[in-house]
Amino acid sequence: MPKSKELARATLENLYRIFTVPEAPDSTLGAIDQAIAGDVAGFLQTHIVALQRQIEEIEADFSSAVIPEEPTFVSEYTEFVKEKLVAHSVHTAAPGFIGHMTSALPYFMLPLSRIMTALNQNLVKVETSKSFTPMERQVLAMLHRLVYRGEDAFYDSLIHDSRHALGAFCSGGTIANVTALWVARNRLFAPDGDFRGIAREGLGRALKHLGCEGIAVLVSRRGHYSFGKAADLLGLGRDHLVMVETDADSRVDLRKLREEYRRLREENIRPLALVGIAGTTETGNVDPLEALADLAAEFDCHFHVDAAWGGPTLFSDRHRHLLAGIERADSVTIDAHKQLYVPMGAGMVVFKDPTALSAIEHHAAYILRHGSKDLGSHTLEGSRPGKAMLVHAGLSIIGRKGYELLIDLGIERARTFAAMVRQHPDFELTSEPELNILTYRYCPREVQWRLAGASAEEAASINTLLDQVNQLLQKYQREAGQTFVSRTRLRVASHREEITVLRAVLANPLTTDEILVAVLAEQCAIVQQPEISTLLRQLEALCPPVAGPGCRGQKPFSQAI
Amino acid sequence: MPKSKELARATLENLYRIFTVPEAPDSTLGAIDQAIAGDVAGFLQTHIVALQRQIEEIEADFSSAVIPEEPTFVSEYTEFVKEKLVAHSVHTAAPGFIGHMTSALPYFMLPLSRIMTALNQNLVKVETSKSFTPMERQVLAMLHRLVYRGEDAFYDSLIHDSRHALGAFCSGGTIANVTALWVARNRLFAPDGDFRGIAREGLGRALKHLGCEGIAVLVSRRGHYSFGKAADLLGLGRDHLVMVETDADSRVDLRKLREEYRRLREENIRPLALVGIAGTTETGNVDPLEALADLAAEFDCHFHVDAAWGGPTLFSDRHRHLLAGIERADSVTIDAHKQLYVPMGAGMVVFKDPTALSAIEHHAAYILRHGSKDLGSHTLEGSRPGKAMLVHAGLSIIGRKGYELLIDLGIERARTFAAMVRQHPDFELTSEPELNILTYRYCPREVQWRLAGASAEEAASINTLLDQVNQLLQKYQREAGQTFVSRTRLRVASHREEITVLRAVLANPLTTDEILVAVLAEQCAIVQQPEISTLLRQLEALCPPVAGPGCRGQKPFSQAI
Repeated sequence: MPKSKELARATLENLYRIFTVPEAPDSTLGAIDQAIAGDVAGFLQTHIVALQRQIEEIEADFSSAVIPEEPTFVSEYTEFVKEKLVAHSVHTAAPGFIGHMTSALPYFMLPLSRIMTALNQNLVKVETSKSFTPMERQVLAMLHRLVYRGEDAFYDSLIHDSRHALGAFCSGGTIANVTALWVARNRLFAPDGDFRGIAREGLGRALKHLGCEGIAVLVSRRGHYSFGKAADLLGLGRDHLVMVETDADSRVDLRKLREEYRRLREENIRPLALVGIAGTTETGNVDPLEALADLAAEFDCHFHVDAAWGGPTLFSDRHRHLLAGIERADSVTIDAHKQLYVPMGAGMVVFKDPTALSAIEHHAAYILRHGSKDLGSHTLEGSRPGKAMLVHAGLSIIGRKGYELLIDLGIERARTFAAMVRQHPDFELTSEPELNILTYRYCPREVQWRLAGASAEEAASINTLLDQVNQLLQKYQREAGQTFVSRTRLRVASHREEITVLRAVLANPLTTDEILVAVLAEQCAIVQQPEISTLLRQLEALCPPVAGPGCRGQKPFSQAI
Repeated sequence: MPKSKELARATLENLYRIFTVPEAPDSTLGAIDQAIAGDVAGFLQTHIVALQRQIEEIEADFSSAVIPEEPTFVSEYTEFVKEKLVAHSVHTAAPGFIGHMTSALPYFMLPLSRIMTALNQNLVKVETSKSFTPMERQVLAMLHRLVYRGEDAFYDSLIHDSRHALGAFCSGGTIANVTALWVARNRLFAPDGDFRGIAREGLGRALKHLGCEGIAVLVSRRGHYSFGKAADLLGLGRDHLVMVETDADSRVDLRKLREEYRRLREENIRPLALVGIAGTTETGNVDPLEALADLAAEFDCHFHVDAAWGGPTLFSDRHRHLLAGIERADSVTIDAHKQLYVPMGAGMVVFKDPTALSAIEHHAAYILRHGSKDLGSHTLEGSRPGKAMLVHAGLSIIGRKGYELLIDLGIERARTFAAMVRQHPDFELTSEPELNILTYRYCPREVQWRLAGASAEEAASINTLLDQVNQLLQKYQREAGQTFVSRTRLRVASHREEITVLRAVLANPLTTDEILVAVLAEQCAIVQQPEISTLLRQLEALCPPVAGPGCRGQKPFSQAI
């Protein structure tokens, strides 16, 4: 049939077009591309709809499991992207979006990302990455040196030595933490006499070989949830992730840590690794790393520092001391998509000992041959994009001093925000910022005073109501889409039980003091909504009003504004 | 000091600039950006230097471990990127680059990638992704339906149900395979009476609970190296990854598989999973999936199919039957950055049972709360970019029929190339293409004839020489930078021992027959180089010349052209 043949040829030609003909600058997609190139903030501001739709409504636009049978015009699809996907995305770069660890990105990241995507290198092997391989090794060496401050000769001899690796690049902090513990586990159970090592024989035989009941990882209860995943994945079991109590400042309690260690030894469980946190996800606190390094030496176990968030604090002359002791860690995780201001999907783990990663080395006949420079021989992931290029760009263009400025600004701004919260009659600061993260909650001063003298039972009733208020407050604020803080549950110094708190991360350099004032003002306005007002009236019944200065004068706090 | 203060203000202003002022269209970076937008193929062709520098020379440009102290101008850095990074990248999109699993990308992927990067969503939680969460769930449902062909009602009720997950999106096939085996392991050792499950208690206690010595994964010796990593990571040990012999067509030998199973049971080792390969990395063959599904049922173990490469064959009406039985798999890996033509860094695993992923579910107080729609509660990775958007775009714009055409073209082209190799007097086809991958080697017909009647010892000598020839041939061709094939070592039907073969992957729709002719012609030219000629003369001494048709007429093959 000549007609169907003609049709086939037309389809084939269309297919070739999408691989060979660029989007015209005046096409729908071309225009968006130009708009983003010229003014990304404006594009996001214009196209992301501020007022939030319910997730169920959005789901309706993505509800078919049927792969379209026929091709769609790019222009038509782009309209869909604009109206259905972009419009209802989250404006993570907005200076008022201070709830999670996202920020505006440096402008150069966008065109450089396009170069990266166009080159489409695969870092698993030199044959598909070439110059990207030495570039990634250089990035890892730079981060290694930032942490460990090795001698020039050390780096000169090892930076491109295929028999050594200063670290591994990966898609994010979770894979970095898993890699660190994987290496620690395989080194603990290294080949030894007849035992050919855990990598060959497995964990069951490894435990028998060492004659222990299990292996455990110790970390404070503020440890990132990726350690729970790692404990499961690596076969330790979550019961053997020991979440140690913290002190009043969310730092690991060293006395409790020792107790846990003793308990483990009594149960014939071997400590695999001690984890210090340099910037807890929820409160931004830093564990006492020097003391932990001493303990890890005493316990004879791996010392890992999760500096996914706080690692870049090392750029700052003023604040570097907070991380003192990190250079004694066996491994350190640093996320690039956090405070290195790289787009999502880039993390790293560096190892003090450049032979450590050989504990997880692997090879294959068609790539990763012995002696090759293929990076894939010691990464958890296989095929990987050239994201290290964007870290390289950040380090080169922003420089040490530029990052120092960003770090210093963030910490300063967190202190400013903490002062605002402290001075405001309706909020309670629940954790002081050590780096650039703090937590607080809506809790009118009268209630704070009442709580100070309350019995355990009374406090529990009041906190239950406050939890509901703060949960709704965060939800309404998120849905209004103007500004955003996140929430979590914490046990903090001033309260016996876990409470719901609001969490602010001050890493976006475009966040101004005026925006911080606006965040609190919006929260004061939101509590006027009926659902929250009802809760506040219940609170008021428990807490007699007290005269005092504040935004609402002498009015009861259920009519705050 | 007012001077240093002035300096600080200037630095701060510069810092704000990089976050707020776009690259001018006529800047170095702006110009590259425009060049890529307008003609990516031209950009790559112009800027990637064809003639290869030694890796050691390239390393010299990336040799400092010192993070620059001072900021650099974007324009200056861009010059560096152009001359040092881009110039010595690998042209993975070139139609003559047929050695690895990369291809030219559809044009729309570039501007859509920029939208994705600009939005910088984090898919770990709804609060930082919103519409991207239902979009990713839709993509997983589409792939699930492609594999399992469930009823509409099944997808309608589950696609956005937070208590269920049809799959997990990840950075690539390795993480997908690890996730599948992690789920299988945790389901085998599910909570049972006093035993609270492996996720809680760990592998040591789990083995005791089931009273077995170990757990094993069975896969053919063509299995991807990620299964070795998974066996190590999950605590099984590489000894318990049983690499079963294959038949003459690189498919798992079912008789040998049964033997291995019996051996395992005798050793009190429990089979955890049976893995079928739908498109082996090296030869593109598909295991007999129906038979494997039967065996997995008989062995009472998880059945996983690694369709990272071959999965999209399901788009093709003509070739889908090659994967018959895949719908009986408990889990299936499909890579998006391979035959879905998405840029590097996108893979998926789908599960037949929508409750399977609950075996690795995890939660945290500040995100991933119970009952939330946060995707991060059942992924190995934590923070992740919105790459699913590019899969969504491909499926929508190219459509089922477009992908079918791409698949059909690739298989057809592989057959064409196989015919060229077969007809050429100087090459030997070492594996027939079943999908779009084939292997061959430089092996003049006289040598093929000689090998046919040779003793084992003679064959070994000849093959050793041929291995050297092909290894050098591949190296020189890669270094010349015109065209590219990869190489691996395989045991193939026609030879007793493992031999070095060249490997071609025909997935780039821009690869024409003329380019395939050129690949072989370049190889015929390369063997004239002194180092290889010497080897060929040694071969000639072992193989008397025979008259026959061919590109070189009656000349000895050491003077082929």
